[in-house]
Amino acid sequence: MADPDQLARAFADHYYNTFDNNRAGLAPLYQEQSMLTFEGGKVMGAQAIVAKLTSLPFQQCKHHIGTTDAQPSLSGGITVFVTGTLQTEGEQHHLKYSQFFHLMPHGQSFVVTNDVFRLV
Amino acid sequence: MADPDQLARAFADHYYNTFDNNRAGLAPLYQEQSMLTFEGGKVMGAQAIVAKLTSLPFQQCKHHIGTTDAQPSLSGGITVFVTGTLQTEGEQHHLKYSQFFHLMPHGQSFVVTNDVFRLV
Repeated sequence: MADPDQLARAFADHYYNTFDNNRAGLAPLYQEQSMLTFEGGKVMGAQAIVAKLTSLPFQQCKHHIGTTDAQPSLSGGITVFVTGTLQTEGEQHHLKYSQFFHLMPHGQSFVVTNDVFRLV
Repeated sequence: MADPDQLARAFADHYYNTFDNNRAGLAPLYQEQSMLTFEGGKVMGAQAIVAKLTSLPFQQCKHHIGTTDAQPSLSGGITVFVTGTLQTEGEQHHLKYSQFFHLMPHGQSFVVTNDVFRLV
């Protein structure tokens, strides 16, 4: 497997770029067993997760990654821990967030099996 | 397995209570393969992790848990995501932090296999 830190950074760049430009395009990153906990609310499965993300009450959003920390996981995947800020349309204020992902290899790419997001 | 959310909260209470009162007492929570990334610095193994935590430049510390989010992991463990604040001796200011743990069942208890800490 490639260097976990490089992978984590590349994944985070891809994830937030997709989130900010085409949220529905995140669907291929999740599977039926994927779990998202978003501000304490739990949803499971790619369809429900993307429905949740696309229903958030803003149209435009821009994430700024601060740090990414990666570790290999026991199950052969990678844990990715991100801290950053985000800005929604019309808001001058940047909100701080932290997010955790667990990625599993899937073909030539990865899928997200666990995802936890919190504003901090 | 018990409810992941209850387990996560009980673990976080135990972890930070031990951290704040007897940091060296955290050693039994880690194993030789455990990984800690603390503010971007990586250490591996219970001995190195506890050496890192006990060498932090403050004697007294008090964590206040804000949120804990738990999910079952692919490897049969639990992911625990914590946001909170901490206060070190002589500091009136509370620092915000986020921390991720992966716990694996171990006998009647759990061990921490992955641990990532960031001030936010």
